Amino acid sequence: MRESLIVISHEPLREFAQAMLLGAKVPEDKARLVAESLVEANLRGVDSHGVQLLNFYIDHILMGCVDVHAEGHVVSESGGAMVYSGDNGLGQVVAHAACEHAIRLAKAHGVSLVTVREANHFGAAAFWSQKIARGGLIGISMCNATPLVPPWQGREPRFGTNPICMALPGAADRSWLLDMATTTVAMGKIFKAHFSGQPEIPPGWAMDSQGVPTTRTEEAIKGMPMPLGGYKGSGLAFMVEILVAVLSGGAMSTEVGGIRIRSRPMRCGFAFFGVDVSRYLPIEEFQARMDRLIELVKNTPPAPGYHEVLVAGEPEWRNKEERLRNGIPLSKGVWEELIKTASKVNAVPPAVVER
Amino acid sequence: MRESLIVISHEPLREFAQAMLLGAKVPEDKARLVAESLVEANLRGVDSHGVQLLNFYIDHILMGCVDVHAEGHVVSESGGAMVYSGDNGLGQVVAHAACEHAIRLAKAHGVSLVTVREANHFGAAAFWSQKIARGGLIGISMCNATPLVPPWQGREPRFGTNPICMALPGAADRSWLLDMATTTVAMGKIFKAHFSGQPEIPPGWAMDSQGVPTTRTEEAIKGMPMPLGGYKGSGLAFMVEILVAVLSGGAMSTEVGGIRIRSRPMRCGFAFFGVDVSRYLPIEEFQARMDRLIELVKNTPPAPGYHEVLVAGEPEWRNKEERLRNGIPLSKGVWEELIKTASKVNAVPPAVVER
Repeated sequence: MRESLIVISHEPLREFAQAMLLGAKVPEDKARLVAESLVEANLRGVDSHGVQLLNFYIDHILMGCVDVHAEGHVVSESGGAMVYSGDNGLGQVVAHAACEHAIRLAKAHGVSLVTVREANHFGAAAFWSQKIARGGLIGISMCNATPLVPPWQGREPRFGTNPICMALPGAADRSWLLDMATTTVAMGKIFKAHFSGQPEIPPGWAMDSQGVPTTRTEEAIKGMPMPLGGYKGSGLAFMVEILVAVLSGGAMSTEVGGIRIRSRPMRCGFAFFGVDVSRYLPIEEFQARMDRLIELVKNTPPAPGYHEVLVAGEPEWRNKEERLRNGIPLSKGVWEELIKTASKVNAVPPAVVER
Repeated sequence: MRESLIVISHEPLREFAQAMLLGAKVPEDKARLVAESLVEANLRGVDSHGVQLLNFYIDHILMGCVDVHAEGHVVSESGGAMVYSGDNGLGQVVAHAACEHAIRLAKAHGVSLVTVREANHFGAAAFWSQKIARGGLIGISMCNATPLVPPWQGREPRFGTNPICMALPGAADRSWLLDMATTTVAMGKIFKAHFSGQPEIPPGWAMDSQGVPTTRTEEAIKGMPMPLGGYKGSGLAFMVEILVAVLSGGAMSTEVGGIRIRSRPMRCGFAFFGVDVSRYLPIEEFQARMDRLIELVKNTPPAPGYHEVLVAGEPEWRNKEERLRNGIPLSKGVWEELIKTASKVNAVPPAVVER
């Protein structure tokens, strides 16, 4: 069965997203930032972290779980170290402020680590690592999230998909970008399969509610995503939880709510590292060395069944070029959900092309 | 078939390791440090990074590939950022010096990142993260290594097993410790299976020389270890390579030699992060929060087939307690190789118990 799609350009999609947020009484500058972060994920082909999140964001806001005016505040600052409280503001608003601090502190001290508590969902981590990278730094972002993932050998969720993301400064920003959940896939991909009406997901993605591996989308939705490679994925998720939640004094593990957990604030945390590349070597040399490393990797003869070796971020750059030109395809299921959500906040959907 | 083992206490094993290094003309303080790092890995049950490495280290030293007197030097220091050159010194000697700088810089600036080039094999990463942690810091260690791992979709090696390791300060040092290769297993585990005469390894560990997955130890030895979870493991290995090699100006990817590649220096690199916990929250509070998080995770009901949920580092602490008490078991194959190596440097093996 071919999936039913609609196609929309990024600009009207961003305006629509912004209108929905404005309709939910989000101030204009904050609505613009959130909309931008979501549509950027759609442009990169990371639809799990795109506008489909608005279905959850808007509900959460309408239920009064998020303070749409809060921007957070600095709890403590010392050298390159900072604790920031999001004060239950919108995740993107809090992340934006915290990243500005990570950039400022890395420029002042060479290396920075800003850890953030009491925030909400910040969209795709890539948006924030790239923001730090545009400050001339290596940017590393992490967050904890709704407990959906069991620790290895366990059968109940204790961790979120706790992603690790790194972006590079200068022209290297377009050559390599890592943004990975510490599960085999992000939960959003399983939800996307669900909303797109795909009955099966690949093996290794998820377990059912009893902790038994499954490839049935409907079982996976009620179950749990798998930690990457078993105990190592659990170890990485724990590492993220320490840097994000233990260090920040924020909510940990099962204390974290979620955009899909109604009637209470999410209370998630972030960690942002900044590394001032120019203190190590000239940025042009860094770029030249990255180019050489990428060449070394890309000239690897492909394994049987493949015709090319890709580096992290490459598929997303290709998507972005293509989608800037030809528009963003969304599954009809996602689009219909969005229209339902829009009706709750009196936002008018733009015209779209069916494909 | 039950594996033939010998058992030896950590103290005579350390003395034997030190005697072998002294026999290879390594200065006494340096020989002691290398021996300590290897035996500590054996105590923790990480035998792939224990004394069996001496078979390669000693050969490499005897061939003149390592400068046993070099300690390296600071190339540049700026805020929490440092580039260090190992000057082809012993990996442990260089790592020791670089970690001291990482501790000093994190104490001065809150967060530090020391990147190291032109070094040799430093043993298990845990030894170095724990060294930084004993300075009251969160310690994160990474290194690149002999290119043995293909990038995802490729059929020729481009990355080492490029481990990521994090250790915690204070009492937390005994409660959680992550030390993981970005492959499904470290190459040393495949070599250990080989030396122990195990004909089969678990699926997912390795590919043969054509890039096709295999469970036959002899094929795996001639082949390549698999990146953790496919493209994500490749992404993490690439991240490590950037922080370790692109940033340090050192050897990258196929430019790196190896302890098993004779007649040329290894030229590997390290990265050491230090994070001064006390700038974020009091260390006692950090410990109390870690205790709570560990409790939250360990009280997860076990999945079918398991009776307990373990956190990272826990199996190694149990091994260490047991091996401090009852001695270190080594496979007879490993022990016989060691005795052969010892004869090259006129070191006298201690008496051992066969089991």
